[in-house]
Parts: sequence; structure tokens; C-alpha cells
Amino acid sequence: MGEQLYQRVALIGLGLIASSMAHAMRRAGMTCEIVGTARSAETRATAEELGFCDRVAATAAEAVKDADLVVLAIPVGAMEAIAKEIASNLTPGATVTDVGSVKKAVIEAVAPHLPKDVHFIPGHPLAGTEHSGPRAGFAELFDNRWNILVPDEKTDPGALERLTRYWQALGANVDTMDPDHHDLVLAVTSHAPHLIAYTMVGVADDLRRVTDSEVIKYSAAGFRDFTRIAASDPIMWRDVFLTNKDATLEILGRFTEELFALQRAIRTGNGEQLFDYFTRTRAIRRGIIEAGQDTDAPDFGRQGKKS
Amino acid sequence: MGEQLYQRVALIGLGLIASSMAHAMRRAGMTCEIVGTARSAETRATAEELGFCDRVAATAAEAVKDADLVVLAIPVGAMEAIAKEIASNLTPGATVTDVGSVKKAVIEAVAPHLPKDVHFIPGHPLAGTEHSGPRAGFAELFDNRWNILVPDEKTDPGALERLTRYWQALGANVDTMDPDHHDLVLAVTSHAPHLIAYTMVGVADDLRRVTDSEVIKYSAAGFRDFTRIAASDPIMWRDVFLTNKDATLEILGRFTEELFALQRAIRTGNGEQLFDYFTRTRAIRRGIIEAGQDTDAPDFGRQGKKS
Repeated sequence: MGEQLYQRVALIGLGLIASSMAHAMRRAGMTCEIVGTARSAETRATAEELGFCDRVAATAAEAVKDADLVVLAIPVGAMEAIAKEIASNLTPGATVTDVGSVKKAVIEAVAPHLPKDVHFIPGHPLAGTEHSGPRAGFAELFDNRWNILVPDEKTDPGALERLTRYWQALGANVDTMDPDHHDLVLAVTSHAPHLIAYTMVGVADDLRRVTDSEVIKYSAAGFRDFTRIAASDPIMWRDVFLTNKDATLEILGRFTEELFALQRAIRTGNGEQLFDYFTRTRAIRRGIIEAGQDTDAPDFGRQGKKS
Repeated sequence: MGEQLYQRVALIGLGLIASSMAHAMRRAGMTCEIVGTARSAETRATAEELGFCDRVAATAAEAVKDADLVVLAIPVGAMEAIAKEIASNLTPGATVTDVGSVKKAVIEAVAPHLPKDVHFIPGHPLAGTEHSGPRAGFAELFDNRWNILVPDEKTDPGALERLTRYWQALGANVDTMDPDHHDLVLAVTSHAPHLIAYTMVGVADDLRRVTDSEVIKYSAAGFRDFTRIAASDPIMWRDVFLTNKDATLEILGRFTEELFALQRAIRTGNGEQLFDYFTRTRAIRRGIIEAGQDTDAPDFGRQGKKS
């Protein structure tokens, strides 16, 4: 087991995604050297302690030396500086990929700085939890999740094929998409929902007549799920919204329009409109379960806990 | 085991909540007779088949005869008609409670029709899943969940104490609240979040350039959680919004205000404002986990499924 796809993999950033990649590479039996680095000395020390890298380098420039795969697993806003930093140390023929949640902005930030003799194939594994940091990683994170790769017409087919097989070995399904379409699909399925969840939790936090303790004590399904979403990494999400501005604002505009229509239905007592709307949305849920992207098990907020 | 709190319990409505109550009563070793009824013949037949009631009655009027506890486990919009139907068959000294998600409207719909010699103590167990119907019930639904009882100044302390002990035997924590405050707290923690989730899923469904199959295939954390919420029972939720109109619209108004502020921060590129907002909302999540109302286990959408 463990097809030898790369000899040395450099993980730039050692958070949830990179640490999970390391665990998943080990699980897949890959024998390549894993070199990791992070800007924060504390994160590097934690990674050393946990031992999921063969070696922790002090800088990104050092980490990428002789690597045939370089993974940028850092917030989108940090990509350009890192691309500049590593450019001159990249090995000719190496593949550079990333795991950022937006693709157009990453391409604009990274591509201009990379030498022409490396393969830059941006990617986005649709996987995550509300936890972050090197201790949050686990080998199963990518199992049955999609990684969307964003090649262009000049991408080397061999390099794309190798990166595809690498992600499949980590447990993921791989698909390709163009960057604009990726950013719109993700605005709908991830970015707008996150902003909405953050907003609702913020509203609850502000409300004077409903004390914090009541919001927490009586958090029911609905709000409780929102707080889970709204506990995600603030830096990552700040960068997502700043760099996928147009698509996110477009979806939020449509969301507000719909919300106003439903608010009017509530105000005027139009039960039929509400019922029809709520019936329609059930079908999408069924589709997601059938597509194997969630389970039908009832979620009442305490998986993994015996009560 | 199984303190004998009531001799005969009538469950009016045989959906998720009532069927879970029956299972939880059996688990608690209660030996009382459980009589159930539902408007739909199909639901009554399913309940007969599953056998969680001792007896299934054809009508609510018949079911409540000689019951010392009557539980109205039906959509809020159906409460008034049922109250009228059962009123003359209620036993003097019996306790009538409900499980509706709003309390002011239920009290207005039910209280005027009940005889003065029964104890009406409205209640709301904060428990549920996205599934509905008699097959969805399970004994653990109320474990460690809150049931908010809404007595008034004339409520008999003995009847309240008995109903409290009953719900505790079903696994729930019990608290009391006044109806207005209940409806506001729930508008924040449940009703507004549900409407928002329904809206976002509806927007995704409408969007022409993002096909259904892509929304489903690439449904990431965020949207996937929203679809779970938006799969809840359409009749129940229609009634919630129609009957908790004022509090829901107030919270939605605040939500929109906040959302516009964050949209402006995105549009103007104010990363600091976004970062501060997202950092603040993390604290609420920690509070919910500490309060035992959710677990810290990472949710990546496939509990109970080996991949």
C-alpha cells in the first residue's frame, strides 16, 4: 500500500487541514518525508510535540526546499506573502497547491509570483470542523469529501493526475471546476451560510432582555447549530469574505430579498406561503442524504456522548 | 421503579414528541395507561402497529376520558379546536399540558375553553429532531433537555410539582418562565434561526447558475447544517411563525440590521470589524458546550456512519 506519489511534501501552515493531511498521509501508508512550517512559534512547537511531521522548519522558504509537493494551508489573506517568500526556493517541476476556500483571489495572489517551471494547481477540500489548530487534525477528515481542483488550460495533465491520486489516497473525491464557478457555488453552500450564522449568534449576544445564560441554557436546535458554525476560525473567515466579496454579497442580496418576502408572509399571516416554502426546502435535505454527504440519523445535539 | 404520578395519560397527537414521551414513560417504568390519538387514521394505524400506546382512541374527546394527565402534542394552530373538543370530557382535577413551541398563543387558544376544575399548565420541551411522525420517536429525546413550564399565579403548586416530577422522570430538566419571556427567548434561540435556515436553503434552490446537483454534491458545513434545520415539519413551523409573529419579526429586524452592517464591512473591506465580530461569537459556543447542551466533538457531517 501507499503509492509513492511525492518524495517530500511541504505543508505551509499547520492548522486543522494540514495536520489532518499529515495524519491521512500516514494512514495511507505514504512514506514521503513530511516537512511542516507555521508562522507562529507556538504552532511549530505543538506540531513538534505531536510529531505528525518528519521535520518542522522555521520558515516557509526553508520548508519548500527540495519538496515536490507544496501545500499552502494558510488563510487566504496570507497567500501572497508566502508565495513571494517561497518562490525562489521552489524545485523545478514541483507542484504547488493550496486549500483556500476561495479560488479566484488565491490565483491572483499566488500565480504571478511563482516561477514558470512549477505546476500551480489550486484546490479546495470541502472539509472542516469548527475546531482549528494543529491539535484539531485527524486522518478521517477528508473521507468521502470533495476536493475541488482548479486547473487551467495550461495545467500539465500529468501533474493534475498525480495530485488527484494524492487526494484520493487521502480519502477524498476529486473534481475540477473553473475558479469563478467555484467561488459562486461556495458562496451559496458555505460562505453566505457562515455569515448568516455569525450574524444570528451576534444578535443573540447583543440582546439585553435575553441574558447570555438564557441563550446558552435554552439553546435549542437551530441556534445551537448556528453557534457551531459561528465558532469557526475568525481569521480564515475574515479572509474568505474579503476575497470572495462579489459572490458573497450577491447571494446575501438574494437571501435578504427572500427573507423579506417570508417576513411579509408572517406579518400578513399568509400560512399557505410559509407552508409551501418549508415543504420545498425538505427536498434538498433528502438530496444531500442520498448523495452521502450527511446521514439521516436524528441530530439532537449530543453525538458521541452518553447521557 | 417508576413513581406512579398519573394513572392514565392521554397523548393528543402522535408525532415525534408524543411517541418519544410514550417511549420515555416506558423506560422510566411508569405503569400508567397510555391512551393516544391523532387526527389522521394513518398515524393512528402506525401507532397501533408500533404499540407504544396501550390504546389508540379514534377521537381526542374519547382519549381524554378518565385521564389525569392530558398532553396536547399537536401543531399550535390545531390547539383551539382540540381544546373545544375535549373540554366537556375532561376529568375534574386532571392536568392539561401541551408541548407547543409558543406559549402566549397557546394559552389564548386553549385556556378559555377548559373547565375551571382542571389544571392547565402549558409547557415546551426544548427537544426535537428534523424528523417527524410516530416512527421518529425514541426514549432518549428529552434526556438533559429543558422543559419550560409556564404556570401562572393561580396554578396549583401540587399539580405543578407533579408535572415537574413527571418530566424529570422522562429525563428532562424543568424550569418555569412567563409566557411573554418564553416567546422572546425562543424567537432568538429557535424561531428566527429556523426561518433563516429555511430562507437560505430556498435561495440555493432558486439559484439557476448553481444547479441543484452542485448544491447537494458540494454541500459543505454551513449549508448542510441549514438543510437539516430546514427539513423540520412544515406545519409545525408555519404555526410557530404565525403565532409568535411579534417576537419573531422583532428578532428578524435586528438580524437584518446586523447583517447589513456586516455586508457593509465586506463591501468596504473592513477586515478588523469582521474579525472582531467572529471572535466574539466563539464565546457563546463555548458556553453552550460548558452548559452540557452540545458536545465538543467535531461535527463533519457523518455521525453514525463509517466511511
